[in-house]
Amino acid sequence: MKLRVHVLGLDAGGKTIAIINEEDAREFGVHPLERIVLRKGSKKLTVVVNTTKKFVKEGNIVVYKEVSERLRLKTGDTVEAEPRETLASKYYIRKKIDGGELAANEIRCIVDDVLDRNLNDLEMAAFITALHIHGLTMNEAAALSKAMVATSKKIAFHGTVVDKHSIGGVSGDKTSLLLVPIIAAAGLTIPKTSSRSITSPAGTADRMEILAPVELDIKSIKRVVKKVGGCLVWGGAGDLAPADDLFIQIEHPLSLDPLLLPSVMSKKKVAGSKYVVIDIPVGLEAKIKNKEEAEKLAKKFIMLGKDLGIKVDCGITNGNQPIGYAIGPALEAKEALETIMRIKKPTDLLDKATSLAGLLLRMCGKGNVATAKKILNSGMAEKKLRQIIGAQGGNPKIMPDDIPFADHKISIKSGSDGIVTGVSDDRIAYVAKVAGAPKDKLAGIMLNKKIGDSVKKGEILFTIFAEKRQKLNKAYKTARSMHIFYILDHKERKMLIERV
Amino acid sequence: MKLRVHVLGLDAGGKTIAIINEEDAREFGVHPLERIVLRKGSKKLTVVVNTTKKFVKEGNIVVYKEVSERLRLKTGDTVEAEPRETLASKYYIRKKIDGGELAANEIRCIVDDVLDRNLNDLEMAAFITALHIHGLTMNEAAALSKAMVATSKKIAFHGTVVDKHSIGGVSGDKTSLLLVPIIAAAGLTIPKTSSRSITSPAGTADRMEILAPVELDIKSIKRVVKKVGGCLVWGGAGDLAPADDLFIQIEHPLSLDPLLLPSVMSKKKVAGSKYVVIDIPVGLEAKIKNKEEAEKLAKKFIMLGKDLGIKVDCGITNGNQPIGYAIGPALEAKEALETIMRIKKPTDLLDKATSLAGLLLRMCGKGNVATAKKILNSGMAEKKLRQIIGAQGGNPKIMPDDIPFADHKISIKSGSDGIVTGVSDDRIAYVAKVAGAPKDKLAGIMLNKKIGDSVKKGEILFTIFAEKRQKLNKAYKTARSMHIFYILDHKERKMLIERV
Repeated sequence: MKLRVHVLGLDAGGKTIAIINEEDAREFGVHPLERIVLRKGSKKLTVVVNTTKKFVKEGNIVVYKEVSERLRLKTGDTVEAEPRETLASKYYIRKKIDGGELAANEIRCIVDDVLDRNLNDLEMAAFITALHIHGLTMNEAAALSKAMVATSKKIAFHGTVVDKHSIGGVSGDKTSLLLVPIIAAAGLTIPKTSSRSITSPAGTADRMEILAPVELDIKSIKRVVKKVGGCLVWGGAGDLAPADDLFIQIEHPLSLDPLLLPSVMSKKKVAGSKYVVIDIPVGLEAKIKNKEEAEKLAKKFIMLGKDLGIKVDCGITNGNQPIGYAIGPALEAKEALETIMRIKKPTDLLDKATSLAGLLLRMCGKGNVATAKKILNSGMAEKKLRQIIGAQGGNPKIMPDDIPFADHKISIKSGSDGIVTGVSDDRIAYVAKVAGAPKDKLAGIMLNKKIGDSVKKGEILFTIFAEKRQKLNKAYKTARSMHIFYILDHKERKMLIERV
Repeated sequence: MKLRVHVLGLDAGGKTIAIINEEDAREFGVHPLERIVLRKGSKKLTVVVNTTKKFVKEGNIVVYKEVSERLRLKTGDTVEAEPRETLASKYYIRKKIDGGELAANEIRCIVDDVLDRNLNDLEMAAFITALHIHGLTMNEAAALSKAMVATSKKIAFHGTVVDKHSIGGVSGDKTSLLLVPIIAAAGLTIPKTSSRSITSPAGTADRMEILAPVELDIKSIKRVVKKVGGCLVWGGAGDLAPADDLFIQIEHPLSLDPLLLPSVMSKKKVAGSKYVVIDIPVGLEAKIKNKEEAEKLAKKFIMLGKDLGIKVDCGITNGNQPIGYAIGPALEAKEALETIMRIKKPTDLLDKATSLAGLLLRMCGKGNVATAKKILNSGMAEKKLRQIIGAQGGNPKIMPDDIPFADHKISIKSGSDGIVTGVSDDRIAYVAKVAGAPKDKLAGIMLNKKIGDSVKKGEILFTIFAEKRQKLNKAYKTARSMHIFYILDHKERKMLIERV
């Protein structure tokens, strides 16, 4: 059917969308959100159909920017439209929904159709939900990883390429800012890419951005890594894992994460990693609730690594409270800098960074946790971090005091004497977000007390920082309404739930 | 946060969508496709967020027509935007995804959020997929039906209200065009609403539309039913089941149908039905493949009916080939008219219509299958159909020859002698659709032979009708490439797969 084109100067976030009249949709036999194929000359594009009773008359088609650009259409053009053959990948998704195991070629077909934007949001959501409910077999996880690797551009780095990944779920975790310099200082190559946060108070990319630019293209990443052996950059700029990025767009809003293993491991494979350490934080408020669950997940990472030719070690770490004392991009960057400069010594952060670095060093035959500590204590790690900062375009001489504090702050004090027996990571993170993190880079929380610390009535438990007075007030109100600190009364020997 | 409004004169098919800058989305802590709340004066609306890097600058918001209308916004206005609290219904959907059973209040909460457009397409798709995978318990089905009933406007009809529903899946099924007049002629009230087809060659509303208008509003439907005791109208005009309509928008493109029972039964309850007969066609190419599966489904319909105060009988019918000889809106309307006028006597259609009508009559103590046959053979059913046609605004004196044939036709002949042992319903339907049905109302197929018929080489098996020469040629080519008829050779006593 020939349709008369009207171009709408609006982008649809990368999606190819067109609007046609209900009657024409019926002619094609498509429901809204299903697809038709448009042809203009030798160009061909599959588009999602929105329908309307009146806005678009029969015989006409309104196309979004993505469609007009890819088919080089302008208003008044004629385009040839036809129904699309049913996709094989739709059958494979249905097979997974109905409990079947997908073969490697079926998974590759789905990944290809995801990349070609042939599957719509509903089909993607159904697939993600089915993967979450039925789980992935190891064969499926391997096939999915390989399909993701095959559809990504590989990057060749020099030397022995290693990497670290945390499955996340605990706030204040600035481990990578210490670990990457330690590993690079040991002579290994560690091209670390990280995410920005949307739902937590800070991602590693947000923290590093306080010290240096992180939005580097692939060419710049290669240059930095070649020069200094490592980097700490945002993973979203380089289009490193195009299929995974599209899956994540569906997983995030659904708070489902069934592709964790293939997603992590395919990215490591694409970067040529030979040795990888996976950090699995365990805590009641973390993603992984207990050690048994963590061990099961660790085994899967190790098996999948074997299949991909990557040696994997997993570190199961304590995720019962925030790591270190700082939460929020600038506060965390400052704490990381102070720690690597040996000005401050937050025990848990130091222990976590050197333990995980030690695992990596041991895998590569380059030492162990003692080596990691030595690299840190000798100042070699600091020197390496400064090289990385410089190579990425930041100020290599940056000092902790160069990082500004937020204008507004308020402290929360203890209402009783006792010992801190719990700090709610979830709630600390929530308050930090209300205060403005991660969007307001200076916003966040500094803890004064952590689990095991003694506290006297009137002592500061934590301080909230905010760039805006209004957000500070809201965060303070939120904090006051929540049980964040759990304090055991010395005298009474009973558990008080401290309402700060 | 205050945002400056830009109104986009484009409707989003009833969805409330707004486009904001990526950075503002981060400030709200929302991913694309998640929601924010907009306030203007005392009005408040939840909108789905699309994000853009450049098209919309920070501090601005582009809103679709639905949003500008509901909040009375114009370009240049300021609107107050804030993140939305996490919906309880999201937790309930997650509970179902993770295999839990939903309580009645949880289901009601989901239905309310569906109606308030608070759940996005991804969440709806995840919910439908989870319902398909885990199934609904009888308690869940009942709670869902009741929530759908509670959120619909009830319609009060006079007399004993009864209904018939086919779960579908077999083509040429014009049973309702005979059954409704039989039942209404027996003095019962049967306000039958039907769907149009999108993926099959004709729906009952498409068939009836050849004889009379079917897009009646609720007021007109009431008037028709009051006057003549029954109707045959399209169910989409009256907004009879708003929640179900929204679920169906997700189910159709996914080809999933987990809400079949609540969807059917809530509509019957809203219309005040006391007795309902459900037609469950069974066939290898039908939705239900065997008798055991059909009996299980039948029991569920009966149990759910009990819970809702509706007496249900189920008829398990033969769905191994098309019903009657005609497929396509006009051809089927003509066949129904000829049959009710006793000009033609397609055995299976007559048997199906009178059997199902008999079940209904027996339930109400108004007779049985013999009564149904009598009503049909006496001409009472024809008289009633003509009354219904007239009341809906059609020509009550319409004769079969008033229904035109399509301009183009071509016949497919048998290549051998033998007995027809199979007719592929799927493939007949597919060819009819290629010929243009249901959009081209005159397009379709007339069968000359059905299962059990003897056939001689060169005899016509079926004829394809099309409004357009091009579609006829394509349908003919499609038909020639498929095994549609299975013919058993008399002499050879072997099964030939007849490639017509």
